[in-house]
Amino acid sequence: MTAATALQPDNIIAAEMRRVGQAAKDASKVLALADAPRKESALRAAAAAIRAQVQIILEANAKDMAAGAERNLSAAFMDRLQLTPDRVEAMAAGLEDVAVRKDPIGRMLDEWTRPNGLKISKISVPLGVIGIIYESRPNVTADAGGLCLKSGNAAILRGGSDSLHSSSAIADCLRIGLVEAGLPEDGIQLVQTRDRAAVGEMLRLHDLIDIIVPRGGRSLIERVMADSTIPVIAHLEGICHVYVDRAADPKMARDIVLNAKMRRTGICGAAETLLIDRAQAADQLPGIVDALVEARCEVRGDSEAQGIDERIVPATDADWETEYLDAIISVKVVDGVEGAVDHVNRHGTNHTDTIVTEDTETAEMFLSRIDSGIVMHNASTQFADGGEFGMGAEIGISTGKLHARGPVGADQLTSYKYIVRGGGQTRP
Amino acid sequence: MTAATALQPDNIIAAEMRRVGQAAKDASKVLALADAPRKESALRAAAAAIRAQVQIILEANAKDMAAGAERNLSAAFMDRLQLTPDRVEAMAAGLEDVAVRKDPIGRMLDEWTRPNGLKISKISVPLGVIGIIYESRPNVTADAGGLCLKSGNAAILRGGSDSLHSSSAIADCLRIGLVEAGLPEDGIQLVQTRDRAAVGEMLRLHDLIDIIVPRGGRSLIERVMADSTIPVIAHLEGICHVYVDRAADPKMARDIVLNAKMRRTGICGAAETLLIDRAQAADQLPGIVDALVEARCEVRGDSEAQGIDERIVPATDADWETEYLDAIISVKVVDGVEGAVDHVNRHGTNHTDTIVTEDTETAEMFLSRIDSGIVMHNASTQFADGGEFGMGAEIGISTGKLHARGPVGADQLTSYKYIVRGGGQTRP
Repeated sequence: MTAATALQPDNIIAAEMRRVGQAAKDASKVLALADAPRKESALRAAAAAIRAQVQIILEANAKDMAAGAERNLSAAFMDRLQLTPDRVEAMAAGLEDVAVRKDPIGRMLDEWTRPNGLKISKISVPLGVIGIIYESRPNVTADAGGLCLKSGNAAILRGGSDSLHSSSAIADCLRIGLVEAGLPEDGIQLVQTRDRAAVGEMLRLHDLIDIIVPRGGRSLIERVMADSTIPVIAHLEGICHVYVDRAADPKMARDIVLNAKMRRTGICGAAETLLIDRAQAADQLPGIVDALVEARCEVRGDSEAQGIDERIVPATDADWETEYLDAIISVKVVDGVEGAVDHVNRHGTNHTDTIVTEDTETAEMFLSRIDSGIVMHNASTQFADGGEFGMGAEIGISTGKLHARGPVGADQLTSYKYIVRGGGQTRP
Repeated sequence: MTAATALQPDNIIAAEMRRVGQAAKDASKVLALADAPRKESALRAAAAAIRAQVQIILEANAKDMAAGAERNLSAAFMDRLQLTPDRVEAMAAGLEDVAVRKDPIGRMLDEWTRPNGLKISKISVPLGVIGIIYESRPNVTADAGGLCLKSGNAAILRGGSDSLHSSSAIADCLRIGLVEAGLPEDGIQLVQTRDRAAVGEMLRLHDLIDIIVPRGGRSLIERVMADSTIPVIAHLEGICHVYVDRAADPKMARDIVLNAKMRRTGICGAAETLLIDRAQAADQLPGIVDALVEARCEVRGDSEAQGIDERIVPATDADWETEYLDAIISVKVVDGVEGAVDHVNRHGTNHTDTIVTEDTETAEMFLSRIDSGIVMHNASTQFADGGEFGMGAEIGISTGKLHARGPVGADQLTSYKYIVRGGGQTRP
């Protein structure tokens, strides 16, 4: 390298990212062969390190918070950035929860013997190197790093530059855990540069990184999907629907709509649109709007909904495809379950949709025809979550159909290989 | 559309491909809900149509063959293009074989109940619309169309322009099968334009096509992977290795090497490189070379191999990464299983690799450390095939780790959804 090229920042970042990628690939070969107790002890040691270093982590976070305040970051952003002793403890507990779960690697997924005597086994294996690109929440560092470690994958973590101090302090603890368990510390690496060019370089390392998982807002995920030469497990928006059928129990419908929308408005499983069956809209909608308005939710609706309840303000076409992530809901009157299915498959994002009905046949029609990763009957969309599914931590909720759909936990961060055992067979 | 834009061929092709894609998406919604007997009867009716129309298919193929001869296509190309009554019958029989297999859709993959009473089921579902881009072999039309139909997916087939008459005649039979079973005929569509721009347009239809499967040579697959905005299940090259360990049975080693290389040299599971343990290379290599030379295979090797047997001509570094698909093999002397694993993981393509040894411990080390979709012990790499695995027909062998690895049959052309059944649960 000449002095002239060495001075170009892009070359330095490209070289640095390639070095990080190669270190991850080397580490992944060791992690892939690590047995379950060793990975478990690394996760426990990482949790212990986080507890031991809580002051260091909180001081690092204070630096990020101060810089964020200076930059006038929004209150919502600052809330996602902030760590507290409770939030740090939750990270440690989360790692321990992942630690004790069943090892996802080396599982016999299938096994059979061919007439010629060949024994074929299908065995789960790690994907290799996983690149995770995320935004401000520093706890993603621990969650994502822990899930990758559990599944025998090396992780390259690229968090938001606003949380770099916090994430570095957390990543240090994860690396301590690896070393204490006798595993390579580069099994988990945090990209240290704040330069956004690092993301672009990362997305080009298709010979070193096996899969990219973006976590964040729509613009981040769309940029990653457009630029990546590496396969992406993407979580796009969650435009989740609640359909209240003619055969719905009115109280259940009101409870589910209220919970699906308002329990937490900022998560991807929050409902954005209420579809209500024309057959009972006039009866049930006002009660539902009562509950929403009381909870300070803005209700937008089509003209028919407005005709039923004057507290409903007009919705535009854009409302049917907007992830509010806020205390706003759109309401549309539809022609029964068929109308609901049509609307969801046209405007939804294949995330999570629920039907409220006492009619099993209608429910089954909805469940089979809605093309979403999670479809529900008589339950709140806010259950769309790896923890609520009993999968432990999740790295996101996939809205694609390839490889993983719905909550992505350690089990989904695996591939498989076929092992064929013979006694000298040749093919005729 | 104005007359001016309508006259531009690219716009016409783009509009035509979008029309095809929309028709496929519409059909996919019906196919996804089709029950097993209906899909089975469509496949049987397609097989019957192929048998009934064998003369029409052979006449169409004769047109392609005549055009190919005029264009001086290679003998190997013409062989792949040519249909005979036997080859047509094999297509019909293949469809019937797919027909009787277990339906891959609607299978309960997992099922559990949460402490709050929510019942979660994980159910296999179709991917949606599958685009298959292939080259000259017209039988891919029947194989790929049949597998997509079996798995409830709509297929957009884009075969090579040199086989368009043949593929059209076959696709007509598949569509007859769909119609006779009461399914939408656009569940299987063959792209009718010879213009190569159609492929580029197809790769941009990410809102209509769920997955692209390219089948063909390296240049086709690399082009598809570079240009596609749709996820690709790719089958890259098969640089398959046979490692003959110090503890190999000499006769078994010779038989497996000969079969892995020479049974058919043109398939992806054919071996390209022989790795031989230094500990017994001088003893066993000459016997193996005897067998290869007798079968008219050219043997290229490193200097150490050449020192052992003077019939071995020099190999260059490029030989370790060349898929010959011909009667040529490269030979390298390695330091035991560790050396073999290093070589394969550096130069292989994650396809299929085999070890010949009587030492179980050595075999297990090879099987666990080689990062390939198929790893074998004491068996020929030529068994790398969906049929030989007992999976029935295959659409290719995936060398990627995402979604599907190894042979891709109807079971691999599926995704899943989570169905959550509750009794009014809201999330606390």
